[in-house]
Amino acid sequence: MQQNETLHLSVDCVLFGYDDAGLKVLLINQKRTEPADSNVKPMSQLPGDLILLDEGLDEAAARVLYELTQLNGVYLKQFHAFGDPNRVKDLKDRAWLRSVRTQPEQRVVTVGYFGLVSLHDFNPKPASFAGSADWIDLQDIGELAFDHNEILSGAIDALQSQLESQHISFELLPKKFTISQLQSLYEVVLEKKFDKRNFRKNVKKMSHVVPLDEKQQGVMHKPAQLFSFNRDELES
Amino acid sequence: MQQNETLHLSVDCVLFGYDDAGLKVLLINQKRTEPADSNVKPMSQLPGDLILLDEGLDEAAARVLYELTQLNGVYLKQFHAFGDPNRVKDLKDRAWLRSVRTQPEQRVVTVGYFGLVSLHDFNPKPASFAGSADWIDLQDIGELAFDHNEILSGAIDALQSQLESQHISFELLPKKFTISQLQSLYEVVLEKKFDKRNFRKNVKKMSHVVPLDEKQQGVMHKPAQLFSFNRDELES
Repeated sequence: MQQNETLHLSVDCVLFGYDDAGLKVLLINQKRTEPADSNVKPMSQLPGDLILLDEGLDEAAARVLYELTQLNGVYLKQFHAFGDPNRVKDLKDRAWLRSVRTQPEQRVVTVGYFGLVSLHDFNPKPASFAGSADWIDLQDIGELAFDHNEILSGAIDALQSQLESQHISFELLPKKFTISQLQSLYEVVLEKKFDKRNFRKNVKKMSHVVPLDEKQQGVMHKPAQLFSFNRDELES
Repeated sequence: MQQNETLHLSVDCVLFGYDDAGLKVLLINQKRTEPADSNVKPMSQLPGDLILLDEGLDEAAARVLYELTQLNGVYLKQFHAFGDPNRVKDLKDRAWLRSVRTQPEQRVVTVGYFGLVSLHDFNPKPASFAGSADWIDLQDIGELAFDHNEILSGAIDALQSQLESQHISFELLPKKFTISQLQSLYEVVLEKKFDKRNFRKNVKKMSHVVPLDEKQQGVMHKPAQLFSFNRDELES
């Protein structure tokens, strides 16, 4: 068996921020080197870093996100490992990597995590070694560092395909929610409009969405019925 | 950034073998050391090994499965990376690891792959460094080496939850299949019985299953209608 001495492992986090207007993604800017080197062109990238030798993968994802953006308590879910032998060897990334890594030529396999949070509850603050940390509109995202466009696109697929069965929407909506809130979430994430009556009909078939014997309170309009998620029917 | 010098990456393959009678899993036996060491108790394990420095993850999974079992052309899908810092450090695994690895104490993160094949099409042959390679009934599987019981259970979840939307059943059934064949597959994988009429009704709602204008030929009973998968509707 060949030992793979010079392989490193990192985690990268794709955090989606949700509000009724659409989805954003949390990106950081690679910091400019000091002294400034005109060969190094800092790019936008997903928050990610090498894992520590004594930490698990989930733990690493939470730590790295916190260290780079000061965000805490985010539900992150592993979705895919990216292991192209050349994934950090592109010309566009080389100068920056050389400026921050002691072994910039070595292979890095990364494990991707994604999460979905309410945009208004989470205000990222960049770490001293990240130039900035911002919510960027999904449609405004250009070329990212490394293979991060590919990782982002894998995360979008995972988010869309897991929205129904998984914990993801459970984490985002309030404990008791209306069908309109659920429909907005589905429309934004799946990027399509649903007919109100059909959506309501489909919700009734979802075993993990339970109608409550309760209505909204303190609203000006006709109070809507409230629903909650049945934890037992959710996949973890 | 701390460099994780002493971390290794492996792949492990959970290959499910299907026939009408149930699901089996391909396991290999760790080979006894020569000279025999009574401290080393070879266990059953999933086919897996360290990746090579210049190969991608999918490539590594196909190579490792082939090298250990001589099986080729299997559709394998990545499902999860397992990175508990202590996953290969259990007492039960230590003596065997010491007998085969030059750095048995070092951390190994593994990327799990799963696949589903027809039991009768794939006859594994153990490599010289595997004691044996056999299809084992799912319910007969006892304690496996390392965290392989956990990996197996993750693969079962992935298989069950992806059976409908994904490429998995597409790979297994013939190009043109009957509803009975599809129902058998669902019943075996999901471990439950379906009512024939309800199953047929549900199949009609599956956008990736297309009725053909064709019937079975050369059968003694009343020929059944044939169906095929619509590739465009399948997730990769």
